[in-house]
Amino acid sequence: MRREEIVHAAREVFSAKGFRNGSLSDIAERVGITHQGVLHHFGTKEQLLVEVLRDRDTTGRAALADASNPRGARFLHHVLNTVTTNTRRTGIVQAYTVLSAESVTEGHPAQPWFRTRFTTLRQDLAEALGEACDAAEPVAREELERGAAVLVAVMDGLQVQWLLDPGAIDMTAAVRMTIDALLTSWGGRPLGPA
Amino acid sequence: MRREEIVHAAREVFSAKGFRNGSLSDIAERVGITHQGVLHHFGTKEQLLVEVLRDRDTTGRAALADASNPRGARFLHHVLNTVTTNTRRTGIVQAYTVLSAESVTEGHPAQPWFRTRFTTLRQDLAEALGEACDAAEPVAREELERGAAVLVAVMDGLQVQWLLDPGAIDMTAAVRMTIDALLTSWGGRPLGPA
Repeated sequence: MRREEIVHAAREVFSAKGFRNGSLSDIAERVGITHQGVLHHFGTKEQLLVEVLRDRDTTGRAALADASNPRGARFLHHVLNTVTTNTRRTGIVQAYTVLSAESVTEGHPAQPWFRTRFTTLRQDLAEALGEACDAAEPVAREELERGAAVLVAVMDGLQVQWLLDPGAIDMTAAVRMTIDALLTSWGGRPLGPA
Repeated sequence: MRREEIVHAAREVFSAKGFRNGSLSDIAERVGITHQGVLHHFGTKEQLLVEVLRDRDTTGRAALADASNPRGARFLHHVLNTVTTNTRRTGIVQAYTVLSAESVTEGHPAQPWFRTRFTTLRQDLAEALGEACDAAEPVAREELERGAAVLVAVMDGLQVQWLLDPGAIDMTAAVRMTIDALLTSWGGRPLGPA
């Protein structure tokens, strides 16, 4: 219960101030405990952020379950909705961007989490792209997996450009362009309305 | 002259150890000066890394000039070659990934450099995509700019996935897939051989 409170407080602090500037003391204060109390529960600030990101994913997945576990084109529409939601939560996007990049450095505590997350996300997206693509010939699994890696990369890479220059980047339109270009290049139709 | 030596030493150190673990003392030692001497020339470690990145871009552009300033499809082939080269310089890719993400945080010293770099790169790529796409109808500028943002995002986002799981990601094939999907979705032909 206390852990959950801390994760929610951390999400608010990281959203408002970013990962670097949001301090453990800010988070502790919101929950009414000490800085040491937060460390007791999570060990490090990085680990706490991993929990915030995991919580974000779990919440997203709960919303998916409500929508009776969408597949194929409906899953891709869910992805587009997430991108649109992200344009209204700069702090979380900033925290995700900084932490995912930091995670590539040796021994970073978030590294296993991101590695697993990317693998799972690529598999789910490869499947969704294959199902959404109603081409005459089925698309080779290798092509779908490559397309999934492209799609994940576009979402992540756009966040960096968008955070630096929000007016220049329409993230939802750019991700949709990528999905449609992939589907049509495989002989399928573009995604169409939700 | 001394500045140039320091930048080259920094590139080697960041390539071998990454940005976080490569220290100013490591760099200073290679040039035979003190840690303070490096700070005297560059102010901060972040600023020194900006110089390493700028130097990388300048070298890339010099190679371009040698190739008589390629445009259109030839420029896109140059981009693909750069992606392939990147698979052989993990340290620089890691440093670029970490620093570009860090730059989105408030007041980061590399922020203006990255903002300008992304704007220029999107413009150059929008032009190259438009020239490479020999479709019957010219592609709208807005579409080309969105496609350019997608292409930059794919290159950056793939680096994160590749650094975490090199065996799972073929960066060159994925970037080529993106270029071809964009060109064909606009009614053009895929890129073809170099």
